[in-house]
Amino acid sequence: MDESKPALLPQSRVAIVGLGLMGGSLALALRGHCAQILGSDTDPAALTLARERHAIDAAIHFEDAVQCDLIILAAPIQAILEQIERLSQLPAGDSQGLILIDLGSTKTDIVAAMQALPAHYDPIGGHPMCGKEKSGIVHAEATLFKGNTFILTPLARTSRRAMRMAHEMIAAIDATPHILSAERHDALVAVTSHLPYLVATVLMQTAHSLHDEEAWTVAASGFRDTSRLAASDVTMMIDVLLSNRAHILDALQRYRAELDSLTQLIDSGDPSALRAALTPPHTRRAGLFV
Amino acid sequence: MDESKPALLPQSRVAIVGLGLMGGSLALALRGHCAQILGSDTDPAALTLARERHAIDAAIHFEDAVQCDLIILAAPIQAILEQIERLSQLPAGDSQGLILIDLGSTKTDIVAAMQALPAHYDPIGGHPMCGKEKSGIVHAEATLFKGNTFILTPLARTSRRAMRMAHEMIAAIDATPHILSAERHDALVAVTSHLPYLVATVLMQTAHSLHDEEAWTVAASGFRDTSRLAASDVTMMIDVLLSNRAHILDALQRYRAELDSLTQLIDSGDPSALRAALTPPHTRRAGLFV
Repeated sequence: MDESKPALLPQSRVAIVGLGLMGGSLALALRGHCAQILGSDTDPAALTLARERHAIDAAIHFEDAVQCDLIILAAPIQAILEQIERLSQLPAGDSQGLILIDLGSTKTDIVAAMQALPAHYDPIGGHPMCGKEKSGIVHAEATLFKGNTFILTPLARTSRRAMRMAHEMIAAIDATPHILSAERHDALVAVTSHLPYLVATVLMQTAHSLHDEEAWTVAASGFRDTSRLAASDVTMMIDVLLSNRAHILDALQRYRAELDSLTQLIDSGDPSALRAALTPPHTRRAGLFV
Repeated sequence: MDESKPALLPQSRVAIVGLGLMGGSLALALRGHCAQILGSDTDPAALTLARERHAIDAAIHFEDAVQCDLIILAAPIQAILEQIERLSQLPAGDSQGLILIDLGSTKTDIVAAMQALPAHYDPIGGHPMCGKEKSGIVHAEATLFKGNTFILTPLARTSRRAMRMAHEMIAAIDATPHILSAERHDALVAVTSHLPYLVATVLMQTAHSLHDEEAWTVAASGFRDTSRLAASDVTMMIDVLLSNRAHILDALQRYRAELDSLTQLIDSGDPSALRAALTPPHTRRAGLFV
């Protein structure tokens, strides 16, 4: 980022499309860092709450987002893809180099759609690596992004100016930028984000398969944390699973092979073989997130 | 519990054998609720730290635990089994109705060993449903048990007096008692506690199998929580896996069947079938731990 140039964000009118957990939190986090924050959502209740929480200055129609300097698409993936298609059909108007960032959880499909946008758009893919198992602006928090990684997946056509805007936005919300290709992003998050959701869901299904209410009484903090992601928003996750299917199936195949291998070790009952298998993941996990 | 009788715990000398995370936390939580707390551990550093933290009044040799009114075995399962064997070989002395509670994570083997103890012991199995992925008295906390379930697995020979002592102890540490047979306890925790540990470990192994350092950069709070239990104490977990092997293998089989079923659904790419499969675990998990 060229520090000698004046910052872009403080002079910018920002349109946030989709005022759920992520869009709502971003609106709250950007307060005071840009000229104006305008919000669009198909749900009138979300717009009302966004105004009540002072997350946005005003509600706008989706089509009016093109009058802003920066558009942030913060809906689930399928909705983002539809919005990009709609943006491509709007007349260019005065807007030149209209910067467009999305917050979608998978990037290959979105970046491909962005690549096909008319030339007056200046798009870049984004994915803040944070979230909650609760959805909706009612759970939005200004500090959601703080201290977390914010992945950027620039396109070949992404300008230095859009890159700079993205970096200013990430700095404003106290996140840390990390640049990846869309393909590489999707391969990595299949294992670090989508697989944990599936693992948690399968754990919930397994506990339910006992059909024993007392199981929930003995479930403690270990079960609580391991199963937490099963409560993630289903609509959001279906989009994720379908738009990153190949990488996720590969992650599941790897996971199943590791599961079978550990199951065999337990079946064999050999304590030294178990120790040799359990110690490396123990050591690696003890050294993470510290 | 007969409320008209005078409480047992305040007059009792309590011996805690094993001053790790659980034994150390119990010592801290019982402070002020009994006449004296004595501690035994094979590790001199644990005894020193227990004294420095004022968790115990004094260190004792294991054999002297039989001079107390209540013995709490708080070591890993294999060590508890060895300690029960050693207790069975000590001379009876003056002790009559010496109450013995353990904190082991699996109960069938321990309760079977307790059943074979000489008549002057009054044993009962116990399992506090709480913990941390960090071990050792250095991580012990007086509030570890607060608000959590404490499972009791009484034997046929367990007296009402021992039952009363156990309930007084659980009340003193602000936990909630829940009574189960040892067999039923082991079947339930195989799914709610041991399976989550394995799920977390296999997730860590899968992420490691990428051999890609950048995976750890993009790992966020979802991965953090789902993988947390992989950092559990390995020695403790080997004892758990081997002493509850049949139930755990059954849990793994159920889990694998659910995993395969969900994998097929993702492979098929049918959004309505995915929604039908993902919504029930979502709803159940959203209603838990609230």
